[in-house]
Amino acid sequence: MLLEQIKGPQDLKQLTKEELQQVVEEARTALLEKISQYGGHNGPNLGVVEMTVALHYVFDSPKDQFVFDVSHQTYVHKMLTGRAQAFLDQAHYNEVSGYTNPLESEHDLFTIGHTSTSLSLANGLAKARDLKKETSNVIAVIGDGSLSGGLAYEGLNNISELGTNTIVIVNDNDQSIAENHGGLYKNLKELRETNGQAENNFFQSLGLDYRYLEAGNDLTALIELFEEVKDQKEPIVLHIHTTKGKGFSYAEANREKFHAGGPFSLETGEYLRSSKPIETYSSLTTDFLLQKMNEDPTVVAVNAGTPMILFSPEQRQQVGSQFVDVGIAEEHAATMTAGLAKGGVKPVWAVHSPFLQRSYDQISHDLALNRLSGTILVTLASVNGMNDESHLGIFDIPFLSHIPNLVYLAPTTKEEYLAMLEWSIDQTDQLVAIRVPVGPVTSTGEVDQTDYSQLYKNKVMQKGEKVAILGLGNFYGLAEEVATELKERQLTATVINPAFISGLDTELLDELKETHQLIVTLEDGILEGGYGQMVAGYLGNEAIHVQTYGLDKAFHDRYEVAALLAENGLTLENIVKNIEQTLTEA
Amino acid sequence: MLLEQIKGPQDLKQLTKEELQQVVEEARTALLEKISQYGGHNGPNLGVVEMTVALHYVFDSPKDQFVFDVSHQTYVHKMLTGRAQAFLDQAHYNEVSGYTNPLESEHDLFTIGHTSTSLSLANGLAKARDLKKETSNVIAVIGDGSLSGGLAYEGLNNISELGTNTIVIVNDNDQSIAENHGGLYKNLKELRETNGQAENNFFQSLGLDYRYLEAGNDLTALIELFEEVKDQKEPIVLHIHTTKGKGFSYAEANREKFHAGGPFSLETGEYLRSSKPIETYSSLTTDFLLQKMNEDPTVVAVNAGTPMILFSPEQRQQVGSQFVDVGIAEEHAATMTAGLAKGGVKPVWAVHSPFLQRSYDQISHDLALNRLSGTILVTLASVNGMNDESHLGIFDIPFLSHIPNLVYLAPTTKEEYLAMLEWSIDQTDQLVAIRVPVGPVTSTGEVDQTDYSQLYKNKVMQKGEKVAILGLGNFYGLAEEVATELKERQLTATVINPAFISGLDTELLDELKETHQLIVTLEDGILEGGYGQMVAGYLGNEAIHVQTYGLDKAFHDRYEVAALLAENGLTLENIVKNIEQTLTEA
Repeated sequence: MLLEQIKGPQDLKQLTKEELQQVVEEARTALLEKISQYGGHNGPNLGVVEMTVALHYVFDSPKDQFVFDVSHQTYVHKMLTGRAQAFLDQAHYNEVSGYTNPLESEHDLFTIGHTSTSLSLANGLAKARDLKKETSNVIAVIGDGSLSGGLAYEGLNNISELGTNTIVIVNDNDQSIAENHGGLYKNLKELRETNGQAENNFFQSLGLDYRYLEAGNDLTALIELFEEVKDQKEPIVLHIHTTKGKGFSYAEANREKFHAGGPFSLETGEYLRSSKPIETYSSLTTDFLLQKMNEDPTVVAVNAGTPMILFSPEQRQQVGSQFVDVGIAEEHAATMTAGLAKGGVKPVWAVHSPFLQRSYDQISHDLALNRLSGTILVTLASVNGMNDESHLGIFDIPFLSHIPNLVYLAPTTKEEYLAMLEWSIDQTDQLVAIRVPVGPVTSTGEVDQTDYSQLYKNKVMQKGEKVAILGLGNFYGLAEEVATELKERQLTATVINPAFISGLDTELLDELKETHQLIVTLEDGILEGGYGQMVAGYLGNEAIHVQTYGLDKAFHDRYEVAALLAENGLTLENIVKNIEQTLTEA
Repeated sequence: MLLEQIKGPQDLKQLTKEELQQVVEEARTALLEKISQYGGHNGPNLGVVEMTVALHYVFDSPKDQFVFDVSHQTYVHKMLTGRAQAFLDQAHYNEVSGYTNPLESEHDLFTIGHTSTSLSLANGLAKARDLKKETSNVIAVIGDGSLSGGLAYEGLNNISELGTNTIVIVNDNDQSIAENHGGLYKNLKELRETNGQAENNFFQSLGLDYRYLEAGNDLTALIELFEEVKDQKEPIVLHIHTTKGKGFSYAEANREKFHAGGPFSLETGEYLRSSKPIETYSSLTTDFLLQKMNEDPTVVAVNAGTPMILFSPEQRQQVGSQFVDVGIAEEHAATMTAGLAKGGVKPVWAVHSPFLQRSYDQISHDLALNRLSGTILVTLASVNGMNDESHLGIFDIPFLSHIPNLVYLAPTTKEEYLAMLEWSIDQTDQLVAIRVPVGPVTSTGEVDQTDYSQLYKNKVMQKGEKVAILGLGNFYGLAEEVATELKERQLTATVINPAFISGLDTELLDELKETHQLIVTLEDGILEGGYGQMVAGYLGNEAIHVQTYGLDKAFHDRYEVAALLAENGLTLENIVKNIEQTLTEA
C-alpha cells in the first residue's frame, strides 16, 4: 500500500502518475471503509479525492497555503499530510477531527466549520504575503454550495481588488447540502453546459480570470491545470466540475442523503440507524408545521441550506411555495423573514444555534428594531447539540436574548413547545425565538393552556421553602431531580420553569427574595452573559443568595457531555451539596 | 410653491411634466437649505431628487412598496409623502428622522440604517405578496456602495430565484461613503462606459434582466423607464447613473467630504465646525497608527467602507498598501483580519460599534476560535455615540465580551489607550478588542506601564472601605465623581478601573467580598448581559451586595443623553443615594 508510506506531500511528489492514481484508489477505499463504519461527510470527500492528490502533488504545502471552505472535505488532505493512519486503522479513527485543525498539522491553517469563509481568509493570507514581500501560492477550495453565502462574494470582490496570486478553486458538484438555490446556480449550470464558455460569467463579471475543467475527477487533467496556474501573479478562478459521492454509486445517486451521516452499509447504501424513536422534537416540529401550513396558506417556512431540519425532499414537494430554502445564506434568511412579516404573512425560520450567530445584525436591525413578528426556531441549542468546536450550540443565550424586542422562549415539554409554536406563529406583536428542546421528548399528556402573550410570566411548578430552583428549558429536568433529592433530605424546594429566557419575572423574584434564602439557576449554555447572571444582577443588592450554573466560556471540542457538565459543577450531587452548604451558613 | 401643496404621492400624479420639474427644483432647494443648516446625508439625497419624484409619480405607494437601502437617501421621499414641512420650515426640521421610519408614514416600510439589507427585505415582501396572491410592485433602491455587502448579493441571488416582480434600482453614483473597493466596481464602470452593453454583466450573470440608464438625473428619462417596467412579472435590475451631490458644485466635486455632515456654507462649501479640539481619541488613533505603520511595515489597518475613522484621503495615500478598505463588508473585514494574522502580519481593524455586530460570527468563528491575534478598535461604543436607533453603540459589551478567546479592553485615559494599542498590536497571543473611549480626552500625563498580558488584572485606583466602585471605561470618570461625593460625606470608597471587560479579576473580587459591604458597577452600555451582571453572578452566593448600573435594553432613538442616563438611575445623586441606603441597611 502506497498510502501508508506517505508521511507528507513531499513523499507524494516522488511518485509516478500511475502510482498517484493508485494513491487515489487507496484513498477512496480507505475513505469508504472509514465513513461507512464511523460516519462523516461522505459525498464531499468522495468527490475530491483526485483533486486533493493533484493539489498536494503540484503545490508545496505549507509554503503554499491551502484554505478549504467549511473544511469538511479534507479527509484525503489529512491522509496525505501525515494522518493516514486515522483513516486506515480503526483504532485511530477518532484521532482526527472532521475539519482542518492547526493542532493536528502545519498543513491545516485554520479551524473551520462554517461556510463561505475561505475566500476572505485566503485574501488575508495573500495580503500578508504581499506585505512581507514573499512569494507563494494561496489556494482556496470552495464548493458551489458555499458560494451562496454573501461572505464568499465579499471575498471574491476583494480578491479581485487585491489583484495578486490567489487561486480560487470552485469545486462544483452541483449540490449544496441539499439542492442549490439562487440565481448564481443558473450561471454555474450554463458554464458547465458550455464547457465554461457561456456568455454570462459571474466570476469574470467580478474582474477575475477564469478557467473551466469538466473532468474534475481526472487526476491527469487536474495536475495539468494546477501546474499551468501555479505561481501566476494574478488571481484566478478554476471552476472544476466534480461528482459528489464519486466512486460509491449510492452516494452519487442520492447526494442529499449522502452529504453526511453514517455509519452505512457499503453493500446496500442504507444507513445503519439504531432504532430511532418515533417521536422527536424534530418530528413534532415537522408534523406541526405540515398541518399548520395546510390550514393556513400564509404560514411560510424559511431555511438557509439545511432544509432537512424541517422537511424531507418529499415533504418539501408537498408544501410547495410555502417553503423557501435560500441557500446557505443565514443573513438573507433573517432579513427575508423581516420582509415576509412586514408583507403580512407568517414566517417560521428554522436554524441551528451555531449558524444563527451568522445573522446577529439581521435579527437585531431588520427584525427586532422593526418590531416585526415572526418565529425563529433555534435548533441544537444545547450542550447536547453538535460537539465540534465550530458547531457549538451553547452561545445563543448570551448573543440572542439581550437583543431588544425579541422574546426568547425555552419550552420544557412537548406540550409547551407546541403551545409556544401555535402562539408565536399566529400573533403579530412580537419577534419570537423558541429554543427547541434537545433530547428525548417529555410529555405531560395535558394540553398547555398558558397564555404566552403575558410576557415573562414564569411557571411555579412546585411551591416550597428556603430554596427556589429555576431550571431553564433543557435543564428543567435537572431542577426537578435536584428537588427530588432535596425532598429526600426533608427539604421541599420551590421549582420554577422560567419558560422565558430574554427577561425576568420580576414580580416573582421580588416575592422570592422575601420568602426564600437561595435561588439556583440552571441553564444549558455558557454562564457568562446568560440567564443566571441576569437573575444575579437583578437580586445583587438583596440579601438572598443566588447560585448560577452553566458552562464556562470556551470552544469545547469533541467533549463528553457528562464530563464537561461535571467540570462545570453541573451534577446533581454538587448542586445539592452547594445548596445545603449555603442554607446551613445562611 | 408646489412642494407645499403635495400631501402625498396622489398629488404628484396630477402635475404636468413641467410642474414635476418644478417640484424637483423646489425639493433640491429645500434640501440644500436644510442640510446646510442642519446637516445630514448631503450627497446621497442631492443625487436622487429626480429619481424620487419619478418613482412616486409612476408607482403607487404604499400599494407598491419601496425599500430604500440604508434609507439615508429618503429626504425627498419624505417631502413627497406628507412631510415637506420638516424640510421647508426650520421650526420643524427635527420632526423627521434621517432614515425611513414606519412611525412617521405608511410610505416608510422599515426602520433602516445599515447597508445592503434592501434586496432581502424586498425579496420577503415579494414572496409575501405572491403567497397572498396579490399584485403590486416591490421596488428596492440600492446604491453602488451598498452592493459591496454580501447580504446584497444574497438578496440578488434570491430575487432571481423567486422570479417574480421585484424592481431593483441600482443608484450608481460611483461612490460609496468613500471610494468604492472590489471587483464589482470594475464591472459597474465598464457598464457605465458602454451604456450598459459591456460583455460582462454582474446582474445578468445572476440570471436577472438588466436595463441601463445613463441620464439618471433626467426626470423624463426616469419616468419613461419606470413606466416601462411597472407591473412586469419578472424581476429586473435598473442600473441608473446618477450624480452624487447633484446641484451643489462643492458636493459634486468632493463626494467623500459631502457624503454626510454639516452644517456648511452654501457659498463656500466649507463645514461650519465649532472649533474642534486639537486632540481627540480619533486623532490619537490616527497619529499612533501613522507612526507605528511607518516603523513596522507589517502593521496593516483594515476598514470596511468608513476609512475616515482612521485616515483622511491624503493619509490613505501616505500609508499605501498598509491600509485596506474592503468596501462596506464588515464580515470580510473580520475574516480577512484572521487571514492577515495567520499570515504573520499585524492587523488593526477599526469599526463603529453598531456595525461591528455585522461580524459576530466572523469574530467568533474565524478569529477567536482560531486563537488568532489581531486588534479590533471598537469606535463610538457609548451612550454618547450616534443616537439613531439603528446606530446605537450600547450593545457591544453583551455581544462581544462573551466570545471565548477574546480580550475586550476598556481604556479610561489617553495613556492607557496608547499603552493598550501598543501591547495589542505587537503581541501574538490574543485576539484583542479595544473599546476606544468616547468623549473628551483625559490624560494622566504619565506613560502607562501596565503589563496587559496579565489578563484581567484590575487597577485599584483608590483604596477605601465599605464600598468599591468599578467604573468601566467611559464611566470611570463617573466612579471618581461618586467617590468624591462620598468623600464629602466622610466615606472613602475603593475606586477600581477594571480595564478589562471580557473577564473578572476574581482574586480582587474575592478580597473585596471579605473587606467590603457593597460593590457598585458602572458601564456605558445596556445592563443586560453586560459587565455588572458578570460581577453579580460571580458574587451571587456571597453576603456582599452588588449594585449594577447601565442602560435598559431598548432601541433608544434620538435621545438626550442626560435624560436617558437619569431614567436609568445613572446620576451622581441617585448612585450616591443608593450606596448610602445600602450601607445603612447592611
